[in-house]
Amino acid sequence: MLDVAVVGASGYGGGELLRLLARHPRVTLRRAFSETYAGKPLSAGFPGWAKQTDLCFESYGDGAAAAECDVVFLAQENGKAMEMAPRLLEAGCKVIDLSADFRFRDTNLYESWYKMPHAASEANKKAVYGLPEIYGEAIRSAPLVGNPGCYPTAAILALAPLLHRRVFDPESLIVDAKSGVSGAGRAKFSLDYHFPEVAENVSAYKIAGTHRHTPEIEQVLSDWVGIPLRVTFTPHLIPMARGILATCYANLREPVNTGDLITLYEEFYANAPFVAVVSDPPPATKHTLGSNMCHIGLAVDKRTNRVTVVSAIDNLVKGAAGQAVQNMNLMCGFAETDGLDFGGLWP
Amino acid sequence: MLDVAVVGASGYGGGELLRLLARHPRVTLRRAFSETYAGKPLSAGFPGWAKQTDLCFESYGDGAAAAECDVVFLAQENGKAMEMAPRLLEAGCKVIDLSADFRFRDTNLYESWYKMPHAASEANKKAVYGLPEIYGEAIRSAPLVGNPGCYPTAAILALAPLLHRRVFDPESLIVDAKSGVSGAGRAKFSLDYHFPEVAENVSAYKIAGTHRHTPEIEQVLSDWVGIPLRVTFTPHLIPMARGILATCYANLREPVNTGDLITLYEEFYANAPFVAVVSDPPPATKHTLGSNMCHIGLAVDKRTNRVTVVSAIDNLVKGAAGQAVQNMNLMCGFAETDGLDFGGLWP
Amino acid sequence: MLDVAVVGASGYGGGELLRLLARHPRVTLRRAFSETYAGKPLSAGFPGWAKQTDLCFESYGDGAAAAECDVVFLAQENGKAMEMAPRLLEAGCKVIDLSADFRFRDTNLYESWYKMPHAASEANKKAVYGLPEIYGEAIRSAPLVGNPGCYPTAAILALAPLLHRRVFDPESLIVDAKSGVSGAGRAKFSLDYHFPEVAENVSAYKIAGTHRHTPEIEQVLSDWVGIPLRVTFTPHLIPMARGILATCYANLREPVNTGDLITLYEEFYANAPFVAVVSDPPPATKHTLGSNMCHIGLAVDKRTNRVTVVSAIDNLVKGAAGQAVQNMNLMCGFAETDGLDFGGLWP
Amino acid sequence: MLDVAVVGASGYGGGELLRLLARHPRVTLRRAFSETYAGKPLSAGFPGWAKQTDLCFESYGDGAAAAECDVVFLAQENGKAMEMAPRLLEAGCKVIDLSADFRFRDTNLYESWYKMPHAASEANKKAVYGLPEIYGEAIRSAPLVGNPGCYPTAAILALAPLLHRRVFDPESLIVDAKSGVSGAGRAKFSLDYHFPEVAENVSAYKIAGTHRHTPEIEQVLSDWVGIPLRVTFTPHLIPMARGILATCYANLREPVNTGDLITLYEEFYANAPFVAVVSDPPPATKHTLGSNMCHIGLAVDKRTNRVTVVSAIDNLVKGAAGQAVQNMNLMCGFAETDGLDFGGLWP
Repeated sequence: MLDVAVVGASGYGGGELLRLLARHPRVTLRRAFSETYAGKPLSAGFPGWAKQTDLCFESYGDGAAAAECDVVFLAQENGKAMEMAPRLLEAGCKVIDLSADFRFRDTNLYESWYKMPHAASEANKKAVYGLPEIYGEAIRSAPLVGNPGCYPTAAILALAPLLHRRVFDPESLIVDAKSGVSGAGRAKFSLDYHFPEVAENVSAYKIAGTHRHTPEIEQVLSDWVGIPLRVTFTPHLIPMARGILATCYANLREPVNTGDLITLYEEFYANAPFVAVVSDPPPATKHTLGSNMCHIGLAVDKRTNRVTVVSAIDNLVKGAAGQAVQNMNLMCGFAETDGLDFGGLWP
Repeated sequence: MLDVAVVGASGYGGGELLRLLARHPRVTLRRAFSETYAGKPLSAGFPGWAKQTDLCFESYGDGAAAAECDVVFLAQENGKAMEMAPRLLEAGCKVIDLSADFRFRDTNLYESWYKMPHAASEANKKAVYGLPEIYGEAIRSAPLVGNPGCYPTAAILALAPLLHRRVFDPESLIVDAKSGVSGAGRAKFSLDYHFPEVAENVSAYKIAGTHRHTPEIEQVLSDWVGIPLRVTFTPHLIPMARGILATCYANLREPVNTGDLITLYEEFYANAPFVAVVSDPPPATKHTLGSNMCHIGLAVDKRTNRVTVVSAIDNLVKGAAGQAVQNMNLMCGFAETDGLDFGGLWP
Repeated sequence: MLDVAVVGASGYGGGELLRLLARHPRVTLRRAFSETYAGKPLSAGFPGWAKQTDLCFESYGDGAAAAECDVVFLAQENGKAMEMAPRLLEAGCKVIDLSADFRFRDTNLYESWYKMPHAASEANKKAVYGLPEIYGEAIRSAPLVGNPGCYPTAAILALAPLLHRRVFDPESLIVDAKSGVSGAGRAKFSLDYHFPEVAENVSAYKIAGTHRHTPEIEQVLSDWVGIPLRVTFTPHLIPMARGILATCYANLREPVNTGDLITLYEEFYANAPFVAVVSDPPPATKHTLGSNMCHIGLAVDKRTNRVTVVSAIDNLVKGAAGQAVQNMNLMCGFAETDGLDFGGLWP
Repeated sequence: MLDVAVVGASGYGGGELLRLLARHPRVTLRRAFSETYAGKPLSAGFPGWAKQTDLCFESYGDGAAAAECDVVFLAQENGKAMEMAPRLLEAGCKVIDLSADFRFRDTNLYESWYKMPHAASEANKKAVYGLPEIYGEAIRSAPLVGNPGCYPTAAILALAPLLHRRVFDPESLIVDAKSGVSGAGRAKFSLDYHFPEVAENVSAYKIAGTHRHTPEIEQVLSDWVGIPLRVTFTPHLIPMARGILATCYANLREPVNTGDLITLYEEFYANAPFVAVVSDPPPATKHTLGSNMCHIGLAVDKRTNRVTVVSAIDNLVKGAAGQAVQNMNLMCGFAETDGLDFGGLWP
């Protein structure tokens, strides 16, 4: 049993890490750091823990307590992890960061989109992008993983097999994604996420390529296919707590059958325990509620010679904490599904 | 004061017609036909009418009672209006049909998508597609209007000014639309619309151009621009009762500024009382809740030379009953905004 | 046409006042005061107004502009109206306050529950509690109305006819009320109203008589029945934007039939245009969505000799802005239903 | 490892049993019976199972396959279990029925409320009411358990400690309960549960003691306290998928402090792993989402000498499938928390 710690444990991603790690068969959840709730029991931040644990939130302090753990999950706003990670790595911890700090190979790209200097460029060189279906081998030996954003996870899993086949027009990629409100986090209160304003309402935001997940999607897809790719990405806010549905479009350069593409996808993900290609019913976010699964469906429109690929995930599980645990499993030599082999809730 | 009747008055579109017509300053709501609730007060179908009216639902019978009215709104499932409209037209009624029966100039197109023979091809020749912002002049003198589908209303209003300018790649049009559940109607009960299955859930359906609104969008846009156009259209089901958001994509053949396009849109809709070009905050369905407005926002992504246009409507108002009343206003020589000059609800 | 102004126009109650007053046939909406949006168009605070009006929010300043209007609606947090009202009354304005400042005859009661001194005890002597179904006559000649709280409106309308009959046990009154989240207002952002925390969630708050609406309900019911009454009141937060359902319980001191009680209620509200006694379907908040109606249903359980009375309102209309307009109508000698004679939205 | 089967496996209760039993450490989920989906994989009924299992739904037939299992869960509409249970018991199975068929000691009471003859009165004599916190000892040796209704679970757990203390007025009990829509089941489609009608809506139904859970609550509380008790029970439909909040009222015959009552409750449930007494924040249904917990909070209103007790459960877990597994654990000598020791989802 390895010891694990969560930093930023009172946010949505952090809370989901607590839920998953507390019952993981190979690790002991040792510490939960939260400045907001330091000194209080877990149930102060997440009342569902009442009568379930004696663990309390604590202050991170100088990080010494975290550094004693084998694996440390960082689940804070952008800019914090790059301050903490170097010391933890030095202490021999494996580090999995759920913020954007270690997702970009090129720290200049990070700096131009996130509007702050990157404070840990040396550590960043050791970081691997934590999408196991693409970078599984590298993750196994990585000391530091930059856990993917929620939108990029859905978008990249939807498009990677298609790009692998090389029958698409590289200038035609569009990702139209719909997210539940938990994607905005738990700490930012504003009119934008005030219940009466969001209920019974749908809107797009940061249209025309201005959302920070755009360069993240482009970096990984470009790396995957070997040529620089541009993507038009539009995020939408949906009146639900959890879930992302990414509807992706690509023009085909030659006629391809829907059936052939489905076979391609099934083969591509044959050994991926958390990706299922589905057809009837089509992907829906609620089919993945609370689980680490990604569901993918697709069809070719012969009239326009364009393929539509739809992927669904729980943004807090496969889009955040579940994927982080999947990464830990690989980094620590556990079975990939350890602690994640459960279904979601229905309804 | 003209006399008006609603056939299919207990559905969502019909109920919204009752709401709008009952307080329209130029007409008297004379009759509400519903086989389901025949003989019962309006409040049996719509409890909000309790203590508000003595009007009762009645059976349509042979249509004689409807034929005595000046304007008849048909708001039933597809296939019914084409049986009823010829007799009503013969009796001198103006007819506005909210089904798909009179939306297609080419009845073959209707028959191939709706899988039934068209029973009123003569009447169809007199029908005008009831989108006032495009066909306003023809509507003024039309005896029969095929009121647009909800998705086509949102999509066409979003794309028409852009196509007008002719700077787009005609093979690049994509409409990714998100609809509230009332779009599925009030009569079809199935697991698909059972509250626990829809709540906290988002899914795409009929992807890759198989939804019946695809040919409707294509017919109007092709007619508008003068060349045959194909559109990839993806509808989504969103956990809310009302509203459609259409996120539309087009490649630009030459560099265009966002600002220039916004000006183009504002000029295009300068005289359209129900279309507003908005920027901050961007379009959101709830901004149009209960009103006849369509809100449109857009931006150009210079990196990909692609424009994203977002439109928001209330699917039951501008997407159905409100637009039908707007059509009546034009057909009867009323002011275009009569009975529709009210804002929506917030929140 | 009288001139009217709204102070606190960018909150939910204020916004609803704008919606109602803008189309009221007897008044002109002249001014909308909001410190948050001062200088900006109405659409900055409520995007639904885009292209609908030239009116802009403005700063209240010294109140001179407001004082030029015939009727001034105050829709701010508690404690503001008592600063403003005296000057407006002196200037000859009729004043309708939607806060709690002028709801209590005994300012000591106000001070003990609202934890601040009452700054306008002289003005308070002229104030009438603005529930037209109970205090209609007094309202007609009042210069100042304290518009009722949302919960008290639902509770009092549900219980008043029963208490009138005097067959109840005065120590048995319980009000279990369920409210949509807009009742919490638009200005307070906190985790309590953050969408992901409220969605798919129900909770009680301020149980066992600690909510400030308790003394308000008790004051009016006691005044109505002529003996001091105590009520157990429990508010609940429901995952919806609008609506209050109050489920009220009372023990009966003698056997009474459900039918007889229904007749009693119908007679009691025979001349009340905004209260309907309904039975099948039973009251539901959505039946009053956007309208000024209150729906009431009831049944006696012979096994326990207890009556259950259920009332439903839209908390922002009959529970706030609609009732305020109804009060204005009475104060100004308009028809009681002027500007309020429209049905709600369904669905 | 014991073999278990679920009959009625495609409903909401059945689906939740599959979720829980599939990962229970002491049993093997052997069979899932559903006439609707017979022959199809679990993912046909619950898409979340895609790529997770090879198990298929099958037809119940003559019950021989079920009878080979050690424990059989019956999760069907009322009236089915009493046909099946005798044979299964004869074959030596332990049977846990989630319908109402075996909840009543007096089959006459069942017959008068459920309007059908009881077909298994002999088996019924062996049945124990499956609320472990009350009947734990009897459950351990029972061959047949009638699993409690969802509302009764919430109501009885809220009131049992109070009644134990005997300081309440036995004629004063009121249970005002709020339920998510999954309580209506998955098989009944009607306008009542059509998404657009339920969203943003709250209503009471079967008021004044006409809901079938009334006699169930009364039977258990009367048995518990030793005198016949009557309860006024009001169920409400809330716009959410899961969860029940029961707000319970009782008059106190002598002054009792809130603190003393809380201590009473904590002691009463000291050894109950699934009941937590909570105070800040108060109980909320979402705190129990997906877990087998029941959260209880309470306060005394000294002004009225009345106590308000609020309990929250997930209606499909502690209110159905989770409690059934808890019963199995007791019946089979497992640890009470086996397979149920996980927290819920937040948010």
